[in-house]
Amino acid sequence: MVGIGDDAAVITPPSPPLNKGGMGGVAPLLITTDSLVEDVHFRRDSPPEALGWKALAVNISDIAAMGGMPKHYLLSLSVPEGISVDYLDRLFAGMTDAARRHGLSLIGGDTTSSPDRIYISVTVIGEASKNILLRKGAKAGDQIFVTGTLGDSALGLRMLEESGVGSWELGVKDLKLKTIINRHLRPVPRVKEGILLANSGTITSMIDISDGLLADLGHICEESKVGATVWADKIPLSKGFKSLSDRFGGIDLALSGGEDYELLFTVNGKEVKNFLSEAKGVKSTHIGEITKGKGVRVVGKDGQLHIPQRSGYEHFKG
Amino acid sequence: MVGIGDDAAVITPPSPPLNKGGMGGVAPLLITTDSLVEDVHFRRDSPPEALGWKALAVNISDIAAMGGMPKHYLLSLSVPEGISVDYLDRLFAGMTDAARRHGLSLIGGDTTSSPDRIYISVTVIGEASKNILLRKGAKAGDQIFVTGTLGDSALGLRMLEESGVGSWELGVKDLKLKTIINRHLRPVPRVKEGILLANSGTITSMIDISDGLLADLGHICEESKVGATVWADKIPLSKGFKSLSDRFGGIDLALSGGEDYELLFTVNGKEVKNFLSEAKGVKSTHIGEITKGKGVRVVGKDGQLHIPQRSGYEHFKG
Repeated sequence: MVGIGDDAAVITPPSPPLNKGGMGGVAPLLITTDSLVEDVHFRRDSPPEALGWKALAVNISDIAAMGGMPKHYLLSLSVPEGISVDYLDRLFAGMTDAARRHGLSLIGGDTTSSPDRIYISVTVIGEASKNILLRKGAKAGDQIFVTGTLGDSALGLRMLEESGVGSWELGVKDLKLKTIINRHLRPVPRVKEGILLANSGTITSMIDISDGLLADLGHICEESKVGATVWADKIPLSKGFKSLSDRFGGIDLALSGGEDYELLFTVNGKEVKNFLSEAKGVKSTHIGEITKGKGVRVVGKDGQLHIPQRSGYEHFKG
Repeated sequence: MVGIGDDAAVITPPSPPLNKGGMGGVAPLLITTDSLVEDVHFRRDSPPEALGWKALAVNISDIAAMGGMPKHYLLSLSVPEGISVDYLDRLFAGMTDAARRHGLSLIGGDTTSSPDRIYISVTVIGEASKNILLRKGAKAGDQIFVTGTLGDSALGLRMLEESGVGSWELGVKDLKLKTIINRHLRPVPRVKEGILLANSGTITSMIDISDGLLADLGHICEESKVGATVWADKIPLSKGFKSLSDRFGGIDLALSGGEDYELLFTVNGKEVKNFLSEAKGVKSTHIGEITKGKGVRVVGKDGQLHIPQRSGYEHFKG
């Protein structure tokens, strides 16, 4: 059983052993929990639908990061008196939307009052694939890949901070900008991709990017006892990010900004060809390689070491 | 699968069907989550060991209420800056104590900052017994039993409120009083009893008493679509409660006060004798019977209707 320290915990349900008539290998369950606290992770004037969506999505992403299929969730909600029924309805609508999109059912939870701030704690239970992908398992020579594009969520957060959260729904007409902001407010966990990757048999480790590429690659390196080299010019960036990110740090924001909820994984160095043919359904980019030693270093196109200006993700401070 | 509305949710893990070589009946898992919020459920000057114990114990009790064996837990903790390491150490010590006493292991969770209040959310996973006991299932003619004694926790809370929470550890020398206060601060969930009851085969419904006897019996009645009569003079009271509860309502406090975390259950009317011989390990008291109709009524020794002065449990307000 995998306990604390990975994206989700693994529980192997009890089953009679083979010699007692049981079938031995019951599919393990994955379980994870994450909380969102008002004025730490969100502001009350941000859209409640997005908050509900995100509270569930970040937990779904933890299951995706293990290659599992999310199935059930529990919601623990603490709400101060001033919150309107309309606000809660919209919050539930966003959460239910994320649940429906990913096939989860609400199976329990509790609601309590709170003196002044909203607290949302979500637990998600999923079913493991045949292979459970952990942070541990990367070896020197393995190749590093990432799904989607990086930095959009961090850029979206900075846009929101600049424009004043809450007004974005009415104010933002520019489609490129709206897409970037939505990457922050309504992240889409990579469930389908996670399962395909788990079943490909060529992946040696995986994590979802919540703290930022460099921080989360650091987690893989620590757990796997290896180092890593990332190629700055290979980092996948969206068109919107390229055109809007300059004054927020550009590539450094993509390297260090958090909450992408993309999957970061390593492919067995000898199986990259097999991976590319077997996991065709997964759009991913080859961004670096696992090395001996420890720590993550970034190199530019010129082969020179690149020192990002900010490292790690800082939560929004209200 | 049992979803929202019972003490815990039931998850049946996926297993190959019998005709595919599977063994079919894998033991279901039980899962429950409950939160404690500072200044709603506890005050910061109450002993952190007790807080840690209780945050886990109330969730364990939900598993016990279904007749299950608690196995794992996840902790989601949000902590403001002012909290000392010593406070957190003591909180974890209390929680770890409850976990060890009941055989649970910590398998995950998250820690975040909080603007000003402590927020604790715990999820407990357990294994179901052969019979899962639900709130639903009581029938007219079934007999109502409860474990232990009632009202001690509610009395303990009132004693704490009166004396000033925090001083109790040093100030309270009277053993009877200390026992009463401990029933509030460190409730002991009835895990062993729950499993014995589930395996006896004579129990038709069960719940743990968190909201108060009348409120929780009301939950059984609603879910089972029956009514109930409770005999006021049969309610089991501790010696301490008898000697100290008069100015807090006496029997009415035992009927309505919450957080007893005793098990309230109904025995098939035709199997009371079997129950009494089979479930010898469970100390319980026969306090009433299930009737047709709906609602819970309390009758005194004289057969007259007794109207309790307060109904339901009110959370501590800071």
